[in-house]
Amino acid sequence: MGELLGVAVLGAGHMGADHIRRLDQVVSGARVAAVADPDTARAKEAVGGIAGVSVHEDAVAALDAPGVEAVLIASPGPAHEEALLAAFARGLPVLCEKPMVPDSDGALRVVEAEARLGRRLAQIGFMRRYDAEYRRLKSLLDGGALGRPLMLHCTHRNVSSPPHFTSAMLINSSVSHEIDAARWLLGQELTAVTVLRPAPSSGAPQGLLDPQFVLFETERGALVDVEVFVNCGFGYQVRCEAVGETGSARIGEEHGMAVTSGGGARQEVPQDYLVRFADAYDREVQAWVDATRRGRVTGPDTWDGYAASAVAEAGVRSLEEGGRVQITLAPRPDLYARTDR
Amino acid sequence: MGELLGVAVLGAGHMGADHIRRLDQVVSGARVAAVADPDTARAKEAVGGIAGVSVHEDAVAALDAPGVEAVLIASPGPAHEEALLAAFARGLPVLCEKPMVPDSDGALRVVEAEARLGRRLAQIGFMRRYDAEYRRLKSLLDGGALGRPLMLHCTHRNVSSPPHFTSAMLINSSVSHEIDAARWLLGQELTAVTVLRPAPSSGAPQGLLDPQFVLFETERGALVDVEVFVNCGFGYQVRCEAVGETGSARIGEEHGMAVTSGGGARQEVPQDYLVRFADAYDREVQAWVDATRRGRVTGPDTWDGYAASAVAEAGVRSLEEGGRVQITLAPRPDLYARTDR
Amino acid sequence: MGELLGVAVLGAGHMGADHIRRLDQVVSGARVAAVADPDTARAKEAVGGIAGVSVHEDAVAALDAPGVEAVLIASPGPAHEEALLAAFARGLPVLCEKPMVPDSDGALRVVEAEARLGRRLAQIGFMRRYDAEYRRLKSLLDGGALGRPLMLHCTHRNVSSPPHFTSAMLINSSVSHEIDAARWLLGQELTAVTVLRPAPSSGAPQGLLDPQFVLFETERGALVDVEVFVNCGFGYQVRCEAVGETGSARIGEEHGMAVTSGGGARQEVPQDYLVRFADAYDREVQAWVDATRRGRVTGPDTWDGYAASAVAEAGVRSLEEGGRVQITLAPRPDLYARTDR
Amino acid sequence: MGELLGVAVLGAGHMGADHIRRLDQVVSGARVAAVADPDTARAKEAVGGIAGVSVHEDAVAALDAPGVEAVLIASPGPAHEEALLAAFARGLPVLCEKPMVPDSDGALRVVEAEARLGRRLAQIGFMRRYDAEYRRLKSLLDGGALGRPLMLHCTHRNVSSPPHFTSAMLINSSVSHEIDAARWLLGQELTAVTVLRPAPSSGAPQGLLDPQFVLFETERGALVDVEVFVNCGFGYQVRCEAVGETGSARIGEEHGMAVTSGGGARQEVPQDYLVRFADAYDREVQAWVDATRRGRVTGPDTWDGYAASAVAEAGVRSLEEGGRVQITLAPRPDLYARTDR
Repeated sequence: MGELLGVAVLGAGHMGADHIRRLDQVVSGARVAAVADPDTARAKEAVGGIAGVSVHEDAVAALDAPGVEAVLIASPGPAHEEALLAAFARGLPVLCEKPMVPDSDGALRVVEAEARLGRRLAQIGFMRRYDAEYRRLKSLLDGGALGRPLMLHCTHRNVSSPPHFTSAMLINSSVSHEIDAARWLLGQELTAVTVLRPAPSSGAPQGLLDPQFVLFETERGALVDVEVFVNCGFGYQVRCEAVGETGSARIGEEHGMAVTSGGGARQEVPQDYLVRFADAYDREVQAWVDATRRGRVTGPDTWDGYAASAVAEAGVRSLEEGGRVQITLAPRPDLYARTDR
Repeated sequence: MGELLGVAVLGAGHMGADHIRRLDQVVSGARVAAVADPDTARAKEAVGGIAGVSVHEDAVAALDAPGVEAVLIASPGPAHEEALLAAFARGLPVLCEKPMVPDSDGALRVVEAEARLGRRLAQIGFMRRYDAEYRRLKSLLDGGALGRPLMLHCTHRNVSSPPHFTSAMLINSSVSHEIDAARWLLGQELTAVTVLRPAPSSGAPQGLLDPQFVLFETERGALVDVEVFVNCGFGYQVRCEAVGETGSARIGEEHGMAVTSGGGARQEVPQDYLVRFADAYDREVQAWVDATRRGRVTGPDTWDGYAASAVAEAGVRSLEEGGRVQITLAPRPDLYARTDR
Repeated sequence: MGELLGVAVLGAGHMGADHIRRLDQVVSGARVAAVADPDTARAKEAVGGIAGVSVHEDAVAALDAPGVEAVLIASPGPAHEEALLAAFARGLPVLCEKPMVPDSDGALRVVEAEARLGRRLAQIGFMRRYDAEYRRLKSLLDGGALGRPLMLHCTHRNVSSPPHFTSAMLINSSVSHEIDAARWLLGQELTAVTVLRPAPSSGAPQGLLDPQFVLFETERGALVDVEVFVNCGFGYQVRCEAVGETGSARIGEEHGMAVTSGGGARQEVPQDYLVRFADAYDREVQAWVDATRRGRVTGPDTWDGYAASAVAEAGVRSLEEGGRVQITLAPRPDLYARTDR
Repeated sequence: MGELLGVAVLGAGHMGADHIRRLDQVVSGARVAAVADPDTARAKEAVGGIAGVSVHEDAVAALDAPGVEAVLIASPGPAHEEALLAAFARGLPVLCEKPMVPDSDGALRVVEAEARLGRRLAQIGFMRRYDAEYRRLKSLLDGGALGRPLMLHCTHRNVSSPPHFTSAMLINSSVSHEIDAARWLLGQELTAVTVLRPAPSSGAPQGLLDPQFVLFETERGALVDVEVFVNCGFGYQVRCEAVGETGSARIGEEHGMAVTSGGGARQEVPQDYLVRFADAYDREVQAWVDATRRGRVTGPDTWDGYAASAVAEAGVRSLEEGGRVQITLAPRPDLYARTDR
């Protein structure tokens, strides 16, 4: 397919460094052309021995660096809006990590800016859409094998939460994955949310409302429930059961090697999302590189990014104020018409 | 253990006939002494060739028949109160099918009548407490292996609902099993209930709100959710996942023989509760016979029967009126002190 | 069904005591009438508080005790032949634990004695035929769902072997269950056997050839392989995979409650055959009592007992001498014609 | 890591075309520089629109084409020896599909040629060593978690065999994967083989001995059994259970999405090795490219290729002549000392 796609990676933290490694060593057809991070030492360390990479303190400077043909945004959420708008201004294709923009107002500005361009430039990093099991479930639902979907039962568990994780982040960071997955699997917008707060686990940091139980209603009457428990202690579990009129399907069950010893048959539970979704990240970035080199933009769009932010905001309000909160979305620009999906 | 326990079986319908067969052929230490049913032809058919059984049109007459030492009530729910009170008046040990008494006022009258006797005579037919998997889960929770329980996720699916099944019966007939199981597994009373109504399945009879999604809160802050779907079409599935502070456990998963052919590995799903819980029914009745012959009363008590009715009534109100409904129970007589449990 | 069947239990060891308990407390329609054991103190202890049981030092005396209508033989294998012949002489129905008779010559004498009577009196205790999973596999094979059976892959593992267990006993005690199960599942006689001896596990007692790998050939060209490993350390596992022309089926997989904690999802493995096959024993004895009370004899017959002994003898010869050993059975009396099966 | 590695692909059949696609679109750090196939039209079709690829009728000519730095051999087995020797003569690193060389004499000549060079140039295409589940099993065994390995039970099933598949090919094409996997997992050479021939399935082509059951013994007394059944009709199943002194572990079980509908819970079985081992192929070629660019040679070596051929030859002799066949390997050159492994 000719020359390698030159990518500027914005952000050299945990996620950014992982994407730099991925572009260099895993993904075919791309190369890292520039890296930006306010902490340039960290950026240089992430680049390591990769040749031909310019390092920048300023994200916008990286966009203008020689050889840059596309942008991967892995900086902190609050920096995304400016980076996206700068990429749009330069006509550069973007892969933007989630959350696209943390607040729905900013997210909507990004949607409107892209809509004004009249063509898509951004793919949003909802990597579950690239996970083999999620894709099989999507295809099963789309093929009608379960009849009309009635309910999704979701589980999202982490071993422990990182420092400074707040009760709101269980919704807008953790459950945001289920928000996108539910919209995508069902092909429906979410219309209301209710967050329930069981007595917190003593394994959670003082003051953190963990676990939570989140209920979404959809525009055509389906129900989505999510157990989110980010200090469960034992592993990273992301499961989903879709219940339709004629059957149900489950993904995310433990599998792989089963070891029998000392009175039990045991299957490993992954400890980390980078393990569970390693392949999904690889496929996501490869799909983005492949589409970009063909001059196309595919995958989750900025409308998906906006909707996730708007739904999460409603969820946080339900968490804080109690009760059911209605979700209202802005009018959907034609660029993101559903027939595209 | 000496002579066989003579049992009067009230009701010779589906359940009653099954218990007659069980007492005659499966259970050790008991014999059917009398059978009552307003339809005496049906009663005679259920008795078949069993020797030494008197047949009665009137339930109370059966209690007074020769050789009757204990009563198994399997008549329709509205007839239970009178039969229980008559058994209490005669000091006869009783195994009473669920619902103990359909309305909570009547159920409370039964509780109070037994409390006045000052000793237990009745075991209520919540047979899940005798299922091997439920018992293992109970013992796991009681042993503290999962830490404090935070949530129970329950699934209750039937192939199809019987004729005349109403939306309220999804709560007070189907979910009543989960109500008892949750109270028993957690050792806590339920304090509030919210029933959600997804768009009904087109596989459900016209007008039936099926599936429903029921949320219970408990006195110490745990959450219990139940998907009840009585026209799922594919099988009888009763599953429960308990999530504690340090681990989770699931029961009710398909198991048994796995057949691989034509592109898939398949495990049977039972089609019927009499298949899924056949052993539980056998163990329940055997435990009742064994305890009775030893002059003891064990198992779920009339308070459990009352609480199930009261919680189900609140659930039906939530279904009909929408929103969260608080559950208030009468004061608990000393006879049913928690230390008994 | 009228009066309880009076049973004489011969042998009050581990197995005998368990059957006494079973007849008294689990099985419907029978009572223990007499117990015999050379150690009468042990016999009395096994009887415990059960009323109306005579205790005997001599097995034959127990057969003649008042109220004895049927015999359950649970004495050591070498005592079985005499007990069976004595029961035949008295026309008493018998349930005889395996091995029917340890050596095939003695076993053949029992077959011939029963054949001379011209009617069956004995059921042999191959309890796997009463296990729910084995029965489902049998019914699947008989129904043709897998096509003609080509292979059976079997696993037979125990936590540890009892004292004085010999290398030959892996074949004639442990694998004898697979021998009967294979003959029954396939409806074919076994025609040759080869025993392979991997390097013994250091977990096995000094000198014990454990594990062994046993290969059987059948009269119509199917292959049966058995891993037998009686000091595996972790649990009691009995698995069987049947491979047919159009599919395969597996039984004996771990199931039941799955617990997730500390990095893994774990399912219990039973530690003991009395746990794994508790229901099978109950069903076996209940089936025997039910048939006997109806004047019938069902289940595995003395020919099955003889064939198991003859095949096991050939297996021990292969173990000791190496190589493949042909199996030759005596002519099959008409009483055991295959159409009976 | 600098410039892309230029690869000559020899053979543009099914496997070669798949590798061309993989190098172009999946693997990072390599490009297709030349393709050779006697059928140059087929070669051109496989190249498609990839730029900068020279097409050759002659394999050796491709090795000398501009930009070629490494060779991937995917031509038919009989052509491998010449190609390997030509690559050695030019000092080119090679990834050679299995069988390395079909006959063990030719395979040994390749080993000796490389040994004379004094350094490894070739990696042999046993892709199971790159499968995630096999790697976890290997690491479990190497870590001692199961104690000393005693037995491997293997299953190798295909939906149906390709045209012209012979009885010998069940051993030297299909089972050759298990031969390498067993040697690798156990770290031991195989010393004897016995092939058993159950009555063939009526689903197999006339004259094909399918299934077969293959037993290997190892130098330290472990036992490896393989069911190979290449016309099983229902799917592609590759399973392995390792039994050690203190536990057992199984890989290759069906997993992924479980769909419940119409009376059963169903998991897909892959229909094809390219599905089951897609990731393994990707990782294998990526590992080869990565090592080559670092000037290293890793993975299965020519000794592994030779051993597989020698063991398979003994297996075919056992199949054809019956009975147990001893396996004797040539002396192992120092270059392939076990400490390398």
